Amino acid sequence: MVIDLNADLGEGFGVWRLGDDTALLDVVTSANVACGFHAGDPLTIRRTCAAAVDRGVLIGAQVSYRDLAGFGRREMDVDPEELCAEVLYQLSAVDGIARAMGGRVSYVKPHGALYNRICRDREQAEAVVAAVADHGERLPLLSLPGSVVHEIAVREGVPTVTEAFADRAYTPEGTLVSRRSPGAVLHDPGEVAARAVRMATRGTVTAIDGSEVTVGARSICVHGDTPGAVALARAVRDGLVAAGVTLRAFG
Amino acid sequence: MVIDLNADLGEGFGVWRLGDDTALLDVVTSANVACGFHAGDPLTIRRTCAAAVDRGVLIGAQVSYRDLAGFGRREMDVDPEELCAEVLYQLSAVDGIARAMGGRVSYVKPHGALYNRICRDREQAEAVVAAVADHGERLPLLSLPGSVVHEIAVREGVPTVTEAFADRAYTPEGTLVSRRSPGAVLHDPGEVAARAVRMATRGTVTAIDGSEVTVGARSICVHGDTPGAVALARAVRDGLVAAGVTLRAFG
Amino acid sequence: MVIDLNADLGEGFGVWRLGDDTALLDVVTSANVACGFHAGDPLTIRRTCAAAVDRGVLIGAQVSYRDLAGFGRREMDVDPEELCAEVLYQLSAVDGIARAMGGRVSYVKPHGALYNRICRDREQAEAVVAAVADHGERLPLLSLPGSVVHEIAVREGVPTVTEAFADRAYTPEGTLVSRRSPGAVLHDPGEVAARAVRMATRGTVTAIDGSEVTVGARSICVHGDTPGAVALARAVRDGLVAAGVTLRAFG
Amino acid sequence: MVIDLNADLGEGFGVWRLGDDTALLDVVTSANVACGFHAGDPLTIRRTCAAAVDRGVLIGAQVSYRDLAGFGRREMDVDPEELCAEVLYQLSAVDGIARAMGGRVSYVKPHGALYNRICRDREQAEAVVAAVADHGERLPLLSLPGSVVHEIAVREGVPTVTEAFADRAYTPEGTLVSRRSPGAVLHDPGEVAARAVRMATRGTVTAIDGSEVTVGARSICVHGDTPGAVALARAVRDGLVAAGVTLRAFG
Repeated sequence: MVIDLNADLGEGFGVWRLGDDTALLDVVTSANVACGFHAGDPLTIRRTCAAAVDRGVLIGAQVSYRDLAGFGRREMDVDPEELCAEVLYQLSAVDGIARAMGGRVSYVKPHGALYNRICRDREQAEAVVAAVADHGERLPLLSLPGSVVHEIAVREGVPTVTEAFADRAYTPEGTLVSRRSPGAVLHDPGEVAARAVRMATRGTVTAIDGSEVTVGARSICVHGDTPGAVALARAVRDGLVAAGVTLRAFG
Repeated sequence: MVIDLNADLGEGFGVWRLGDDTALLDVVTSANVACGFHAGDPLTIRRTCAAAVDRGVLIGAQVSYRDLAGFGRREMDVDPEELCAEVLYQLSAVDGIARAMGGRVSYVKPHGALYNRICRDREQAEAVVAAVADHGERLPLLSLPGSVVHEIAVREGVPTVTEAFADRAYTPEGTLVSRRSPGAVLHDPGEVAARAVRMATRGTVTAIDGSEVTVGARSICVHGDTPGAVALARAVRDGLVAAGVTLRAFG
Repeated sequence: MVIDLNADLGEGFGVWRLGDDTALLDVVTSANVACGFHAGDPLTIRRTCAAAVDRGVLIGAQVSYRDLAGFGRREMDVDPEELCAEVLYQLSAVDGIARAMGGRVSYVKPHGALYNRICRDREQAEAVVAAVADHGERLPLLSLPGSVVHEIAVREGVPTVTEAFADRAYTPEGTLVSRRSPGAVLHDPGEVAARAVRMATRGTVTAIDGSEVTVGARSICVHGDTPGAVALARAVRDGLVAAGVTLRAFG
Repeated sequence: MVIDLNADLGEGFGVWRLGDDTALLDVVTSANVACGFHAGDPLTIRRTCAAAVDRGVLIGAQVSYRDLAGFGRREMDVDPEELCAEVLYQLSAVDGIARAMGGRVSYVKPHGALYNRICRDREQAEAVVAAVADHGERLPLLSLPGSVVHEIAVREGVPTVTEAFADRAYTPEGTLVSRRSPGAVLHDPGEVAARAVRMATRGTVTAIDGSEVTVGARSICVHGDTPGAVALARAVRDGLVAAGVTLRAFG
């Protein structure tokens, strides 16, 4: 019984901060470091990588659309060739900084609208997978099982790591309930922690209709951009540890 | 008698182009590739690196202040710690893309206002040298002999490559005459080529007062952002070849 | 028989230029001035407005998605409230500069992907129309007849000016043939000029199936970002003048 | 005995926030609204202007260098002609949005490094004054008495409003003690409020050597980017009201 906990980190820009990176770094085993396109200036990247290395937290590149004003949350019709180059640029930049801090980028997790888009858009998914393959280190791609990007990564020989969301409602088909639907996001720390434990120990989650669904996740995603979210993340960690689950990155 | 010819390349951004990269790549032996902060989107970087690899042209990272609107030509009071992280970010990004194209970044040349600033500003010069040292591959820094950044690089064990400007007037002290002074920039291809030959073969240049000055340059910088500039660069190359000078990168 | 000729102008950014603004300003009667979001830094805006005022060319605000890297050619899922504020920001900025140059913004023409998107996306179209209405001067919106944005503008009391494209193929239904289809763009100056004359004098265009379609356009759009395009634009102007059509802005 | 209280507002960008705008708007009589170049996306500008209009707070344009990454706190060698166009662009954009919200821009206050630079740099000061003059509404410029920009504004017929800083130490010459010197910034609410009262009622401040210096300020600047700063601002307001000073904008 081993699971990874991942969260988005280093999502400030210049004078602006977002979330409590220090608190989160004590909770997670993998840090999705913002690469400068939706957030994350170079100095923030450097400090986040240094702090992750200090705590033995695995570093991932959280690549995004080029969209500071929209925090990478808006889908964009980017040309696939350009998207591929942009992903490689971001990944390489953070990898270089991580190495200077004594670490390295060990995986790639697309951010926000790009993450959602490549679950279904074949062209953009191919572009992201090609960028990861171009990097040459066979880095794993953190993705949703059953998504288009997951399928393409498998085909192209790019390793994948699947993730689940302990604070999100699932459909009986094992997909996430849309955020716009009522009950899509769970807020009770005890309930969310219990779901995380079941994900890690049995590989299942209770769907909105009460049925038991299989989610074979190697990593659970937690959030940290609000004080409540950090408490939730900590409850997940504590619950997992209490249930005898080993927290370990997948690197 | 060996000399390198370097020029700025890949200085478009998105839909905008600058200079004739294809023509220049047939002239130079080293390409200073824009890294995205003053020019150079990731796809342009990728294409420029691919074209350089194709022609056996050495790739350098042309790092800059973050200033697309000013093309990196405006001095900025950037905090040294931030500047260091910015240089490492740019250098790493281009290096990653170059490697995916079968090459690598082999040197660093600061651009525009940053180039000028670190000839005299100790704090910013330390920051740039630290970034190159942090990269860990002991990349050489292209710089002006006698400059503050040159001195710091030597002290820190960062290799340096010195360069000269065949189309610029020199003072008797071996420094460049300010662009604002009359006669600071030479335009006659024959004259510029002759100066390049003397730089490469004798290591000297005739200063504005007629005296002969030593310029121990391993590389000569040419420009390409106007049609006339490309013709000038080609004249320099042809003149050097005709004089029996071997054109070879310093990598 | 009166028609307006409009074209995109001021689409450089910083050191980069695009198209021959000076040549185009002698051809058109209305200038769609880039507002800084897809192109157009403040100094370029100022110079373009000054040149337009000098020649008696009407100034329009060519508002766009915030996307310098993609030149506003990529659709973005911008929140309508944010899009509305962005359009008002751009429009106001150019209007202020135009007034300082002795002119003013007299109409609004959305650019690129935004132009296309609001032909069919009701939410974003409402946002753009609301921004124009908020400006308070009842500026007309340049749009395609039959588009969603046209319909909403009429409903909201925002004046509209319809435009046609002399160098684009039309379907029998009066819509543009997609750029991806063969024959979508016409290049022969004589043919394009003849189509412009028929648009201006009879209000019709020959569709790809040979049928005659009504296009009740008050303005014809020409392009200028290539040398050939300027020649085409000039041919359109000359053809219209020779046919006795009066070229006059709609302001 | 009348004084204005001004503060920087609307300094978020996209997902990022800075300071407690709502709390500050209940304290100040004038709001320096960020214009998008160092902070302030269009939707934030719109909301800030709407909130200011609701409370009867005067709106000013807080114009800046184009430097989101550095929050406008880094001096830049911007060409004066370009700086002038940039200031006019920002001022016009915010004015247009303010008018749509039922208000208008009533003054201009340069931000951060630009504010400091034009206290001594004649070229850039001329550019800023020219932009304000170009706007055509004779808006006052908020500035330090004795500064170069103040002098140029007076010469050019641009109205000025002088301001003082209740939480900053003054030299016997009436200039601010550099932030790098010990004791440059005062933190005790009672002391700061008492200084504000003396500035408003007697037009003087006690300098670091104990001497009494004249500061003929029409406005006092307070800050709000930390919780403590808001409390300090409120103490200043309460102290002034208790001393019988009328708080009123200068518009």
